Amino acid sequence: MKKIAVSLGDLNGVGIEIALKSHEEISKICEPIYCINDKLLASAAKLLDVDIPKDFRTIEMDADFEIRPSLIDAKSGKFSYESFIKAIELCEKQDSDALVTMPIHKEAWSLAGLDYKGHTDLLRKYFKQEAIMMLGCQEMFVALYTEHIPLKDVSKNIKQDKLESFLSDLDNSLEKAKIAVLGLNPHAGDNGVLGNEEREIEAAIKSVNDKIGYERYEGCLVPDVAFTPDARKNYKYYVAMYHDQGLIPLKALYFDESVNISLNLPIVRTSVDHGTAFDIAYKNKAKNISYINAVKSALSLCNKE
Amino acid sequence: MKKIAVSLGDLNGVGIEIALKSHEEISKICEPIYCINDKLLASAAKLLDVDIPKDFRTIEMDADFEIRPSLIDAKSGKFSYESFIKAIELCEKQDSDALVTMPIHKEAWSLAGLDYKGHTDLLRKYFKQEAIMMLGCQEMFVALYTEHIPLKDVSKNIKQDKLESFLSDLDNSLEKAKIAVLGLNPHAGDNGVLGNEEREIEAAIKSVNDKIGYERYEGCLVPDVAFTPDARKNYKYYVAMYHDQGLIPLKALYFDESVNISLNLPIVRTSVDHGTAFDIAYKNKAKNISYINAVKSALSLCNKE
Repeated sequence: MKKIAVSLGDLNGVGIEIALKSHEEISKICEPIYCINDKLLASAAKLLDVDIPKDFRTIEMDADFEIRPSLIDAKSGKFSYESFIKAIELCEKQDSDALVTMPIHKEAWSLAGLDYKGHTDLLRKYFKQEAIMMLGCQEMFVALYTEHIPLKDVSKNIKQDKLESFLSDLDNSLEKAKIAVLGLNPHAGDNGVLGNEEREIEAAIKSVNDKIGYERYEGCLVPDVAFTPDARKNYKYYVAMYHDQGLIPLKALYFDESVNISLNLPIVRTSVDHGTAFDIAYKNKAKNISYINAVKSALSLCNKE
Repeated sequence: MKKIAVSLGDLNGVGIEIALKSHEEISKICEPIYCINDKLLASAAKLLDVDIPKDFRTIEMDADFEIRPSLIDAKSGKFSYESFIKAIELCEKQDSDALVTMPIHKEAWSLAGLDYKGHTDLLRKYFKQEAIMMLGCQEMFVALYTEHIPLKDVSKNIKQDKLESFLSDLDNSLEKAKIAVLGLNPHAGDNGVLGNEEREIEAAIKSVNDKIGYERYEGCLVPDVAFTPDARKNYKYYVAMYHDQGLIPLKALYFDESVNISLNLPIVRTSVDHGTAFDIAYKNKAKNISYINAVKSALSLCNKE
């Protein structure tokens, strides 16, 4: 069975609860290695009032602090960073085949003096590689061409050469299914009447398809038609030109199930697609479907490689 | 019972088939008046191989041409315009309480020398009023603040005074339910880190709410969270800053059911939210749920007034 390193995220949030309640189920499909030490695990289990499964495999970590449910806290922030780094190292040493992350809290990282916008930002800097952010579930995945930038800056980023490089990287990262590429403008520009960035997109698609040797990418699709039930029968993978173009339909359709995947990196990394959920921490209310799906996605990416 | 004037749209498309197959059902809730003459109706019914219901009320129109299923044609374009104008006139003379439109074909209008982008454009020019375009179904409606403009031009249209005027007009047009207003940027700008148009939007919301005297508008909502199943429990009406922000989730969730509504006009007008569907014209394949919903929406807007 594949080994999966699990970083626990912010221990003041829902990550450890989800890991404990999901252990039996995910142990059937992988060998999880939890990046937490026994002492902190015992504290969390006590707060949750649950038993620790006998085969819950932890690691040595020099970390000790008081878990304070729902609090934004520097110590908990620092631990979530260390848990993540440990999990990355396990993958690099090939002691683990993939990495699944529980949510960290960005303000807690900031309080701990950690200057990263989040997991993906850290991975980019750690590996000095252009990670691709893809979100989704088995029914539908969306890769984001631009991510966290103002909407008004999206258009200037739609350039053929940059998009070609993105599509080539994505091609190397995914199974051989066809991939839908969205246009940018209403009606995909209506032949230039409503914008002309679609020319750059279409040129990039053609060029990359020619290099790959088959019609790997299809587009430009009309954005508001691309996610209708009929259209979704044709595609599992989409490339969105901007954050909300991809995430609005994904979250409207599959909010609880969705996972976050980092592609184009030396390691396989997937993540739950929710935050620390401090409002329900240690109340036995957290849903684990996103986590289960993150583990399954990590395994299918391992097997692809 | 309320009277509904039905403009038949392009007779080479699916409008007349839908009107005929839906007549019995909609006659239970309104008195439809069909803006077509008996001769053209007989030709269409013959091509469809269906009987004309006995109480299918037509009007006098000086129109005669050969229906040619699936063809983009100047004569059929001209007729669809005349049918629409007749229906508007019936409403103006108060011979009808509302107007429901079947789809026209823009290229056919162009061939007929008609210089309008579509129904809404014609209504704006006819009534010299800023019609508001809203799409949706009973579960969810989306009013579009900007419509058919390039995405890169959306940001410069987000101005407090212009948005205030839009929100005031919309307030006058809708039942007294709360209305969600979306932000423009990812995470609604994340406090200015990812864009600052949200400040204009929030100022407009506050100003209009103050004038109205209660929290009619709520926002800015984070766009990719606004349409999750939980968020949708809170809102039936949304204001989208741009075309695809509203229409991507609407069509992903309710494609077949959706209708198009023109607000802020002297008459009530609703429309099916699909095109002429030339590919399935006169093949008895057209779905009528959008039309039925358009009639129901027209009736509920009549009753609101």
